[in-house]
Amino acid sequence: MEMRGLSDTDAITPAVPVWAESDPYPSLLEVVRHRRSVRKFEPGRRVPRETLTKIMEAGRWAPSGANAQHWDFICVDDDDTRVRVRDAFLRQGARLREGVEPFPAVNKSFLANTVAIILVLGDERFKSCFPQGVGAASDEYTANNENIFFCSLGAAIQNIQLATVACGLTSAWLSGGGEDQTADELREILHFPLSARPYGTIPIGYPARYPDSKWRRPLAQMIHWNGFAADQYRPQELIDHYVQDVRSFAMYRPFEHVEDWPDVDDRAGPFKAAYTGRVTNPAGALPDPEVARDERDRV
Amino acid sequence: MEMRGLSDTDAITPAVPVWAESDPYPSLLEVVRHRRSVRKFEPGRRVPRETLTKIMEAGRWAPSGANAQHWDFICVDDDDTRVRVRDAFLRQGARLREGVEPFPAVNKSFLANTVAIILVLGDERFKSCFPQGVGAASDEYTANNENIFFCSLGAAIQNIQLATVACGLTSAWLSGGGEDQTADELREILHFPLSARPYGTIPIGYPARYPDSKWRRPLAQMIHWNGFAADQYRPQELIDHYVQDVRSFAMYRPFEHVEDWPDVDDRAGPFKAAYTGRVTNPAGALPDPEVARDERDRV
Repeated sequence: MEMRGLSDTDAITPAVPVWAESDPYPSLLEVVRHRRSVRKFEPGRRVPRETLTKIMEAGRWAPSGANAQHWDFICVDDDDTRVRVRDAFLRQGARLREGVEPFPAVNKSFLANTVAIILVLGDERFKSCFPQGVGAASDEYTANNENIFFCSLGAAIQNIQLATVACGLTSAWLSGGGEDQTADELREILHFPLSARPYGTIPIGYPARYPDSKWRRPLAQMIHWNGFAADQYRPQELIDHYVQDVRSFAMYRPFEHVEDWPDVDDRAGPFKAAYTGRVTNPAGALPDPEVARDERDRV
Repeated sequence: MEMRGLSDTDAITPAVPVWAESDPYPSLLEVVRHRRSVRKFEPGRRVPRETLTKIMEAGRWAPSGANAQHWDFICVDDDDTRVRVRDAFLRQGARLREGVEPFPAVNKSFLANTVAIILVLGDERFKSCFPQGVGAASDEYTANNENIFFCSLGAAIQNIQLATVACGLTSAWLSGGGEDQTADELREILHFPLSARPYGTIPIGYPARYPDSKWRRPLAQMIHWNGFAADQYRPQELIDHYVQDVRSFAMYRPFEHVEDWPDVDDRAGPFKAAYTGRVTNPAGALPDPEVARDERDRV
């Protein structure tokens, strides 16, 4: 591969990229740590389209499978359209309370106070750009097309959220536009093609208050050096416990550390160590692969 | 929702978050724009684990559906394991050349020159944390669970890639670990559970050369204000043209703008305007929804 203006023999071996005048990591981590899901915005604020354009510019630079760039950004900043999009999400929330196992959804009326709502559309036709298996390998590659398709969208959504923070604004991340009914209702309002869906919707505004971080697993629990550490496996009982007893608090309480919850002993119960430390599986064994395979195939 | 140390009546309404001492956007955009897929690293380099830990710390702060944090990071930095992981990806590349429609894959022997390889595992059992439809809505929500699952992983992968750049290193993004055969071979080496797969693999190293950006669609082509602009629709013929005539160049040539390619007229052919400007669909009409629905259902 040849660089513009450089021959193949010009080796450039910077310790840091030549563009970095100073260490950009601390600033990046500040932005990354301050991306929050904010659900209460100051009403009546406005931002210029120049700011919204800067935010979407960051989304444009996300990586994508086969460089397909299979996204479009609909930016809603007029009052009438914003109200109609809000109403579609209010109906989505109502369906979520009725047609779904209990899920701790919040009321989405806060969408009325956004300065803008950015919908990140993904167009499924672009999966044809990714590796297509033939014969026996067909299913394998089709399944992985989903991975490539969505992870690329996730990168674009994340870039947009980070740029939002860097522009002094806050956001959230709504995934409900990926549901059939909500996608159809949003399509009525926003006229996007049938091959596309707003898999991620990012309401943007000035926070009415700047909330603290939500719970994060300790880093030591996530890192496995040179192989998976079996005592950092999260057993099924821990997942079930999370869904039943912890999820609604872990989603909304403004504490990075569960151990700062005043009722931590009640909430985390027998799994307190698993929510607060490195070890989530003190027995240190993974499920028998054959049993796990059976369970997986049952799903 | 209450903040630690602040009562509900303390309104904080900063124009920019209080942590931002100066405008962090330019630095963020520099990092975002310099994330590259680099496939040639300087051999024989090392980084301390402290640096790799800083990189994974950024991944930890990614958002996830229901705050499930359904990821783990396997960081490979020992020589023997690195070679075995490289070999698994060399076999994956060979299968890609044999069992897949022609795809412009590059040889992955460059993995040997990484300072580390971070594999981002996603564990599918955590989908149970996301909204689960009951009755008629079941399929709708199950399908959207895929969106939530993968987009969250994409955000974590993107954070890791951005932190890599901010630490003066470069990366790439391999999705092949999501394929059945490759996942099984990596599981043999790294011992992760059957419920998990390395959907994203991020080789990290010092670039042997720092390549320019690859092609990006013009921003004006991606942005739609308050509704989808039909003349920015990408027709099926344009997607087919991309796959057949442009993809292998758009993936690897170090030019942001297709118009800088010396052979742009040959490569982009009748679609040159669609690769270089706002308008991709001069006819300005979307496909008939009924026809599109038929086509979608055929897939």
